Amino acid sequence: MSANRPAPLLRDGFRHFETLSTRCRDNDIHGRLHNIVHLGLFDTAVNRMLIPQGALDIQGSQVVGLDVHSQCIHHDSSSLPQTVHAGIWVALPGRTSVRYELALFADQAAPSAAPGEFTHVDLDRTTQHPKPLPEKRRAVLESLKVNP
Amino acid sequence: MSANRPAPLLRDGFRHFETLSTRCRDNDIHGRLHNIVHLGLFDTAVNRMLIPQGALDIQGSQVVGLDVHSQCIHHDSSSLPQTVHAGIWVALPGRTSVRYELALFADQAAPSAAPGEFTHVDLDRTTQHPKPLPEKRRAVLESLKVNP
Amino acid sequence: MSANRPAPLLRDGFRHFETLSTRCRDNDIHGRLHNIVHLGLFDTAVNRMLIPQGALDIQGSQVVGLDVHSQCIHHDSSSLPQTVHAGIWVALPGRTSVRYELALFADQAAPSAAPGEFTHVDLDRTTQHPKPLPEKRRAVLESLKVNP
Amino acid sequence: MSANRPAPLLRDGFRHFETLSTRCRDNDIHGRLHNIVHLGLFDTAVNRMLIPQGALDIQGSQVVGLDVHSQCIHHDSSSLPQTVHAGIWVALPGRTSVRYELALFADQAAPSAAPGEFTHVDLDRTTQHPKPLPEKRRAVLESLKVNP
Repeated sequence: MSANRPAPLLRDGFRHFETLSTRCRDNDIHGRLHNIVHLGLFDTAVNRMLIPQGALDIQGSQVVGLDVHSQCIHHDSSSLPQTVHAGIWVALPGRTSVRYELALFADQAAPSAAPGEFTHVDLDRTTQHPKPLPEKRRAVLESLKVNP
Repeated sequence: MSANRPAPLLRDGFRHFETLSTRCRDNDIHGRLHNIVHLGLFDTAVNRMLIPQGALDIQGSQVVGLDVHSQCIHHDSSSLPQTVHAGIWVALPGRTSVRYELALFADQAAPSAAPGEFTHVDLDRTTQHPKPLPEKRRAVLESLKVNP
Repeated sequence: MSANRPAPLLRDGFRHFETLSTRCRDNDIHGRLHNIVHLGLFDTAVNRMLIPQGALDIQGSQVVGLDVHSQCIHHDSSSLPQTVHAGIWVALPGRTSVRYELALFADQAAPSAAPGEFTHVDLDRTTQHPKPLPEKRRAVLESLKVNP
Repeated sequence: MSANRPAPLLRDGFRHFETLSTRCRDNDIHGRLHNIVHLGLFDTAVNRMLIPQGALDIQGSQVVGLDVHSQCIHHDSSSLPQTVHAGIWVALPGRTSVRYELALFADQAAPSAAPGEFTHVDLDRTTQHPKPLPEKRRAVLESLKVNP
């Protein structure tokens, strides 16, 4: 989503999908998905992808994850409590951080409703300094790069 | 959930299920589902059941739905972003109100994590007086009673 | 809020007030406070009252709080992002549990918009069994009873 | 918050403040403010500033507001239910859009916990095309520019 490389907006551009559900309270007063809901769904999609593979441990680990930057582009669209599909690809798996690119697709629709991204680092729980991403997670991330 | 009639806690006690997903932000500081999340999932499950059947119109209708009472019993349990199944049955389909009884079941688990209920009325958008439940919804509700 | 003892609905009936703010996302599609927002504000009001007095420690303690039951009565009212006042009194300070009774008052208005209650227990973090409420909290709770 | 112009991080850099409260549910599993909470507080702060001045009408207007882009930088910090101060300044009051720059300050602390921004447009409710910002809002926005 940088100025010179727009995020892929078609389903084909994403390496992995998680199926999520929207809620009544996600609607704003105009009947659209409230803008902060997208970021919460992005975060959830990545956690649902990583935790079952043992690539993220949010409860027991000596490491505390932090989303250091997040952004989202919004379009105007109606919403009801429904099933949505969060597409994920990985832009920058660095040594201590990773940038996830995501978009939400309604159940039948082709174009993306809301592309966005967030950058994640692991902090040591005691020193609060960034730590290298664990090998197991790095392997998952490498498989999600657009041009591996 | 009155004192002398405990809500059914086994999957067999429910007439209908909706599959929903929990989110990262649903966890409290102890890693459990935050208590207000249950009520939001209950509300969502009923809407997801009714809207596709044409039994509820939250956007265009001359009627405004109101949940006049809601309550929930909580147990202590861990949670990760996961798939949950909301069981629904109907206790009191009255002339102008209905009481929904619900419980959340984790993906594989048998016992209910959080039984609860809410009572819904339809208000006329202009006069704010209760209106009789529409025939189409009443038909759905009758099919969800435990002893029809 | 049992059938034969309605909750006090006037400001005079409450022993303590916390000033909170509502948010854009609290509005439902009809421009009213969404029903789950009340319970979240009740929980927050009690925490804001107890933590600065040293009567609750949600992060470091060997004890894990659990809201075992919560309920709320809703009225139909419009809402904008605004300041609200949560009134609190204590109904049942037992040995291991306490029931808080609350209501939300809009900035200038006299009658309550949404009375509700929740029952809290402390669980031992290891055994998950209820623990006696600590002395410091019990002292605060005693001062909030309606008929001390 | 572009690469060559970091957002102002001291209280002096902001033209207007709104006082808001955080909630129990805003804490993530590590006891920090969850990342989507910041954007919800930013949105709320701007609405609370504009609505009482008659510069925004979210319910009755022929215009539907849309936040077309939002982003936030996060630091690692603990949180309890507390009072926070949202600082606001205006970066780009264009003909049909405006970019708000914000940051959250804890009650006593000087440095910003989470700077962010969002860009808002007004859409005609019928045609869904952008509309010029109304004069009353433009006047408020001009007074919030850093170099007026």
